[in-house]
Amino acid sequence: MTERGLLIVLSGPSGVGKGTVRKAIFEGDDHQFEYSVSMTTRKKREGEVEGVDYFFRTREEFEELIKKGEMLEYAEYVGNYYGTPLRYVEDTLNSGKDVFLEIEVQGAMHIKEKCPDAVFIFLTPPSLEELRQRIEGRGTDEPKIIDERMKVAVEEIQMMKNYDYAVINDEVPLAVKRIKDIISSEHYRVERVMKRYEKMIEEM
Amino acid sequence: MTERGLLIVLSGPSGVGKGTVRKAIFEGDDHQFEYSVSMTTRKKREGEVEGVDYFFRTREEFEELIKKGEMLEYAEYVGNYYGTPLRYVEDTLNSGKDVFLEIEVQGAMHIKEKCPDAVFIFLTPPSLEELRQRIEGRGTDEPKIIDERMKVAVEEIQMMKNYDYAVINDEVPLAVKRIKDIISSEHYRVERVMKRYEKMIEEM
Repeated sequence: MTERGLLIVLSGPSGVGKGTVRKAIFEGDDHQFEYSVSMTTRKKREGEVEGVDYFFRTREEFEELIKKGEMLEYAEYVGNYYGTPLRYVEDTLNSGKDVFLEIEVQGAMHIKEKCPDAVFIFLTPPSLEELRQRIEGRGTDEPKIIDERMKVAVEEIQMMKNYDYAVINDEVPLAVKRIKDIISSEHYRVERVMKRYEKMIEEM
Repeated sequence: MTERGLLIVLSGPSGVGKGTVRKAIFEGDDHQFEYSVSMTTRKKREGEVEGVDYFFRTREEFEELIKKGEMLEYAEYVGNYYGTPLRYVEDTLNSGKDVFLEIEVQGAMHIKEKCPDAVFIFLTPPSLEELRQRIEGRGTDEPKIIDERMKVAVEEIQMMKNYDYAVINDEVPLAVKRIKDIISSEHYRVERVMKRYEKMIEEM
C-alpha cells in the first residue's frame, strides 16, 4: 500500500509575497511535491495557460462542482469564484505524492477544518518596523490611515497562531529553503514513521 | 534579549549508528549548533582529548556534581559514570545557540521529563527485515536466540513513539541531511516565532 502524501498549505497576509515564493519553489527541479492549480471563473488573461495558471471554468460549471462537494475550498472575490478542486488533491495524495497549495488565509482556515493533518505554513513580513516603513513609504497617507493599516497588519500577523510554522519572507531564496526544510522534516514526524514500522511489525 | 537556543536530543537503539551520524554532522562546517561533550569517570584512552571526546573527572568530582544537581542526566555503565553537565547546556542555550546531545535512550527519557521543549530525534534501522538479516548474518546463533534478539529490537523501535521525529539511518549522509532539516525547521515552529512577534507588537 502506498503511503498517503502530505498536504502542504502556504498562506499569509496579503502583500507578503506568497505568489513570488511559491513560484520560486516550483522553478527549482528539486521539489518533490505537486502544485495544486486553482480553479477560477474569471476570464483568461493574455499569456495564461489552462491547467498551469488556473483551470478556467464557467460560473455554471464551478457552481456545479460546489454542489457536488468537489471543491476542497472556494471563495468569491469581485464577482468571480476561486477555489481548489478536491479530486486532483485527493488523487495526488493517494498516489503518495505531497500536494502544495498557496491560498488566502480564509481558504487556509477552511482546509484546517477539513484536513487537520495538513501542514500549515504562514509567510510573514520580517518585522513590524519594516511593515510600517513600507506603509509609510507609500507617501501621501495621513497618520490616521497609517495607524489603521498597521492595526490590520498586526491582526493579520496574529493569525499565524493557527498555523504550524511561520516563515519570514526576508529574502525569497531563504524563505524557499525554509519551506523546503519544513516539508522534508514533516516526513520524519514520528506519527508518520511509526505507522510504517507498526505495519512491518504486524507483518513479521 | 537573546532568544534561547533549542535543545536537540539524538538517540536510538544500540547499534543503530548514533555516534557515526553525530560525528558526520559535526564534521561539516554548516551546522549552527554546539555539541555538548559528555562527562565520564572512565580512564582517558590513547588519543582522547579532554573537552573534545569527554570531560574526564574522578568519581568523587562526578558524584559531587550529581549531589549539587549539576548533571542534566547521568547513568552508570560497567562501574563508570557517564553524563551531561548541566552548566554548558544552560549557558549555550542562554547565549542563543542550539545544543546537540547524542545519548542513550534511557538518558533521553530523563531529559524529556526535565526539558519537554527539547526536540527528540530517534535514529532507527531501515527495516526490521534488514535488522533480522544483520542478526542472522552473524552466523552461529540458534533460531531461539535470533527470535529473542528480534523481540528486543522491536521493543527498542517501539520506543520511538516517545520522540518527535524518527530518522532512518539507511545512509549516513542522508540521515545527516534529515537531522539538519529537522533542526532548521524546528526554528520556524509557530510557538517560537509567535513569541518574537508578540514582543514586537508590545514594543510598538
